[in-house]
Amino acid sequence: MKNYVNLKKGLFITVLAMAPIIIISFTGNNALKKPVEKTIAIAADPLPSWKEGALKKSIIDYVQTITNRAGKGYIPVEDRIATFDNDGTLWAETPTIELEYTKLAFKKMIQKNPALAQQQPYKAIIEKDKAYLATADESVVIGAVIKSLSGSTEAEFDHSVKAFFDTAHYVIEKKIYPIQDATYQPQLELLKYLRANGFKTFICSGGTIEFMRAVSEKYYGIPPEQVIGTKLQYKFMEDTHSIYRLPKVASICDKAGKPVNIQWHIGKIPVFAAGNVKSGGDIQMLKFSQSSKYPSFQLMVNHDDAVREFAYQEKDNASLTAATAGKWHVVSMKDDWNTIFHK
Amino acid sequence: MKNYVNLKKGLFITVLAMAPIIIISFTGNNALKKPVEKTIAIAADPLPSWKEGALKKSIIDYVQTITNRAGKGYIPVEDRIATFDNDGTLWAETPTIELEYTKLAFKKMIQKNPALAQQQPYKAIIEKDKAYLATADESVVIGAVIKSLSGSTEAEFDHSVKAFFDTAHYVIEKKIYPIQDATYQPQLELLKYLRANGFKTFICSGGTIEFMRAVSEKYYGIPPEQVIGTKLQYKFMEDTHSIYRLPKVASICDKAGKPVNIQWHIGKIPVFAAGNVKSGGDIQMLKFSQSSKYPSFQLMVNHDDAVREFAYQEKDNASLTAATAGKWHVVSMKDDWNTIFHK
Repeated sequence: MKNYVNLKKGLFITVLAMAPIIIISFTGNNALKKPVEKTIAIAADPLPSWKEGALKKSIIDYVQTITNRAGKGYIPVEDRIATFDNDGTLWAETPTIELEYTKLAFKKMIQKNPALAQQQPYKAIIEKDKAYLATADESVVIGAVIKSLSGSTEAEFDHSVKAFFDTAHYVIEKKIYPIQDATYQPQLELLKYLRANGFKTFICSGGTIEFMRAVSEKYYGIPPEQVIGTKLQYKFMEDTHSIYRLPKVASICDKAGKPVNIQWHIGKIPVFAAGNVKSGGDIQMLKFSQSSKYPSFQLMVNHDDAVREFAYQEKDNASLTAATAGKWHVVSMKDDWNTIFHK
Repeated sequence: MKNYVNLKKGLFITVLAMAPIIIISFTGNNALKKPVEKTIAIAADPLPSWKEGALKKSIIDYVQTITNRAGKGYIPVEDRIATFDNDGTLWAETPTIELEYTKLAFKKMIQKNPALAQQQPYKAIIEKDKAYLATADESVVIGAVIKSLSGSTEAEFDHSVKAFFDTAHYVIEKKIYPIQDATYQPQLELLKYLRANGFKTFICSGGTIEFMRAVSEKYYGIPPEQVIGTKLQYKFMEDTHSIYRLPKVASICDKAGKPVNIQWHIGKIPVFAAGNVKSGGDIQMLKFSQSSKYPSFQLMVNHDDAVREFAYQEKDNASLTAATAGKWHVVSMKDDWNTIFHK
């Protein structure tokens, strides 16, 4: 038996799905998922989902420049590092997929300990108390989220996250798609294109690291060791020799935390960095990339396609302001992408 | 003009070299650095510096088992993760090379701020006050070491460390060798052999991460992004877009900190892990490795060669005790290695 839960755009905490399958619905995706005729012929175009135009040309020109051994802009293979934000840059973020997972985790916590249902913020979540959630102390809500992501071994967490990805779906125009189809087709092509040109591609996201690692290889061709994200504190268990996830954040990988985590993890400045407009969380990563001694490329995805995805902006417009100041490349999802979602 | 400073075995803090070149002397290396006849023929043996015997056979058997697609012990390529400690496992640790760097850094700090020469622990270091150093509060000495590794941007630090490796040497039997020759030839062969069989090789050391990254590719063929170590806290500078090194430890990568840092960095349990006898710092990494669902291999290097390297033991013998309990493979440098140092 399946229950379909239609989650509204941008709603931070919605109803808990009591069914074994969570359904996330994107609204307003009229043009999505049209059948595509498959062909055996290999396209010469490495970026078929990118519309012909200045931006697509800039990407290809950049890659040609930095791979031209005879040119002044040549970058040795070992320094071809690309970092991509995840939520809103590689897959859709409305609603945030990791928050859907945490809601499922809340449900399990309440099943184990029914008294939680009378405690905040759990009570507000299950009672859909929007008034409470709108004014709640952010640290209380975040604390509950962190708690839902911890209190298990790594193996248990990985199992739980993989089970989520195996059963969770989203709905487009009343049709059900696996979560994988929330990834952006043009970005999947871009990742492949960069790798074909010697780049090592990394995710660098505010999401927690193990949540993304569960599907990074399958969805993006990016191995777990090339995923950088927010980290929980761990404890090595001397008895079982396993890693236990503590309810404490070790490092937040957002805003200025992104360059710091990139330095810890890679030890090189990325020459290609991609983020998106929503919270201003990628500005510092793109600035860091621009500080490279090599020619670099900054890509800022703008969610301006109300028909095929969503149209949303930051309150302070910081990401687009920084993009203008830094002469970064802004993706108009509406104008630059032929296709939005994974196909 | 060069000053040769002969540092004694195991001495934590020795005289500051006032010359542009630091000379580190290994004592008791009688059989070291004999000229080796070069040959064009490629040896069929992937581990020529490992003596024939049970240990060498175990390594080769293990690699053959886990690469045999038809066998029960097969490990998919993406899970062939190997982690090696650095000090005492991949290169010699008497004296500790990073501490030689910090002494050079102290010298520069005192040149900038001569008043430091009257403060502890700097005063004791420059005055060779062994009595003070023997009883000094460890946190004061470590605090000074951390200070010497911070207070600069990443670019400045990398430049300083590379300059150290370009000019620092060690002395064997009155002959000068570059620091690179302090690496162990059998381990260099082992790293190559593992990589030739699909392994991704990582360093996981108590040393600070950027210090090792400066030479990891050159010395070991391990790129900076595959180096895991003790991390300082960083700050992203909003004005210059560079990373600034703060005088604060973010994470110590030793003992139980090794599995934790491996989980953060790789997100997989290593199936091959190598450490060494001295401080018990690698026990947890090897135990973690042994918790893999795959066949795994644990290697513990025992420094028992007083003639060609050094013979030293742990006070509590914890590493060898753990090795016996876990049925790990113990390297006798004396009996298992034909050659000790890089050639």
